[in-house]
Amino acid sequence: MITGASEHATGLWAIHGSLLELDHQLDAIFLSWARELNAPEYRFPQFLAVQHLDRLQYFSSFPHLVTFAVSLDRDEEELKRFAKEHEVSADGSLELPMAPRVTHVVTPAACYHAYVEFEGQEFNEPKIITTRGTCCRREDYYVGLERQWIFSMREIVCIGTSEEVQTFLAEAQEKVDRFVRELGLNVTWEGATDPFFNPKNNPKYIFQKLDPVKQELVFDGRLAIASTNDHRSYFGDAFQLTRDGQTLSSGCIAFGMERWLSAFVHSFGEDPESWPAFKVSDV
Amino acid sequence: MITGASEHATGLWAIHGSLLELDHQLDAIFLSWARELNAPEYRFPQFLAVQHLDRLQYFSSFPHLVTFAVSLDRDEEELKRFAKEHEVSADGSLELPMAPRVTHVVTPAACYHAYVEFEGQEFNEPKIITTRGTCCRREDYYVGLERQWIFSMREIVCIGTSEEVQTFLAEAQEKVDRFVRELGLNVTWEGATDPFFNPKNNPKYIFQKLDPVKQELVFDGRLAIASTNDHRSYFGDAFQLTRDGQTLSSGCIAFGMERWLSAFVHSFGEDPESWPAFKVSDV
Repeated sequence: MITGASEHATGLWAIHGSLLELDHQLDAIFLSWARELNAPEYRFPQFLAVQHLDRLQYFSSFPHLVTFAVSLDRDEEELKRFAKEHEVSADGSLELPMAPRVTHVVTPAACYHAYVEFEGQEFNEPKIITTRGTCCRREDYYVGLERQWIFSMREIVCIGTSEEVQTFLAEAQEKVDRFVRELGLNVTWEGATDPFFNPKNNPKYIFQKLDPVKQELVFDGRLAIASTNDHRSYFGDAFQLTRDGQTLSSGCIAFGMERWLSAFVHSFGEDPESWPAFKVSDV
Repeated sequence: MITGASEHATGLWAIHGSLLELDHQLDAIFLSWARELNAPEYRFPQFLAVQHLDRLQYFSSFPHLVTFAVSLDRDEEELKRFAKEHEVSADGSLELPMAPRVTHVVTPAACYHAYVEFEGQEFNEPKIITTRGTCCRREDYYVGLERQWIFSMREIVCIGTSEEVQTFLAEAQEKVDRFVRELGLNVTWEGATDPFFNPKNNPKYIFQKLDPVKQELVFDGRLAIASTNDHRSYFGDAFQLTRDGQTLSSGCIAFGMERWLSAFVHSFGEDPESWPAFKVSDV
């Protein structure tokens, strides 16, 4: 494993030292781009309501990725019984007392919260914000820094007309291109689709294949470290984001923070002395 | 509600603007104290393994606070059935297909991860680190910035002999005292106990009552915004943290970030212009 990263449990890694310092420095760059776009920062909670995700048909499209946030029944006797009788088996698992009703999901993507934040609002000009969140996606297998159950995502999000969103995405992509050229990272932009469950039976997947809305910045031909996403009116419809009565589009650029760390280590080695220097330009 | 804070769902708040800026500035102060103590920073994952918490009798002591991280069975047919048949009821809840076996909990306290990180290690001198994490505690009721299902905690943690931990806690408490005096916050240190379930029947609670190990920094006589905790050998025993074959003690100082924001607004008003200025001193 890479120095400065340690596995705490399946899919769960900790970082410290030069890796964490690099994370801070990269995030400062992404934040400076947000500032150039006059995008204020938001910190969102890390659970999303089931009813918000359900509007997006999330549970049909991505059931394999979901992690629910489940608490025990508040009934005093139930809690007493659990406190006394719960049993952790040799494989480290524990049975919940009953099939629970769940109301929340651990956030699968940082930008979803932005549409909740702005639900029902009218915007007379493009609304651009940034947020960083801890995201959670269940996977069939995990790789440290590259495919984690829990990972960090920095996003810059734009809500506006279709043209405004496309202009935003093109500008964001330019900033990234300049930066990765300066660093000398071996990356290419590639058309991509979201990781749908059972994709061939999902009209959303077929739609994305026919009319690409997602571009991934792929490192060494194998690892997407950032993506641009044109959501069209998908979130605007679900959360009534409008201008002059017309539903708005949205789009985002997302940075998978741990994957950038992995790309650095794979490109330049583990010794931070050998990493290319970069700093936030004075804007 | 306070400007810059918004409720996304029960117990879940977002912040932006001056409040988020204040959070960054306060965290820079707490981080500077960590630097003065030569404490490197760690970023930990935000789930803890059931088997790690079980060693601490967590499920007997705090079942009412727990939120489990629950994914669906990976079986393709099960996922297909869920994707097709799940139903979100009018109250925004959804039934999981069966009583699941769970392996992880959403982190209830930032420092627990430190003992997992260092499990089985021997320390020849005090080991002091800092971390900031998103913590999760289910409560009977919620108040924005003050009692949230999800909240942010900055901690500085010391693993060492009993004397080393006590020295660390006293020094940390002095730093806090100097800072709150400079700010003019109305706070007092008070003896406290952890929020045990069914406390009168829990020997751990009775032990804490007899021999106080927790001090809370209480704002306006009602809101704990920080605490010092002397864990004795509780974590050292559970995670085999030793020196010369002897189990070590541990202790931490923890800052409830959103509660500091609330204390600022309640003390000095909503207008950031009226907040006392402070900055990280040159160390």
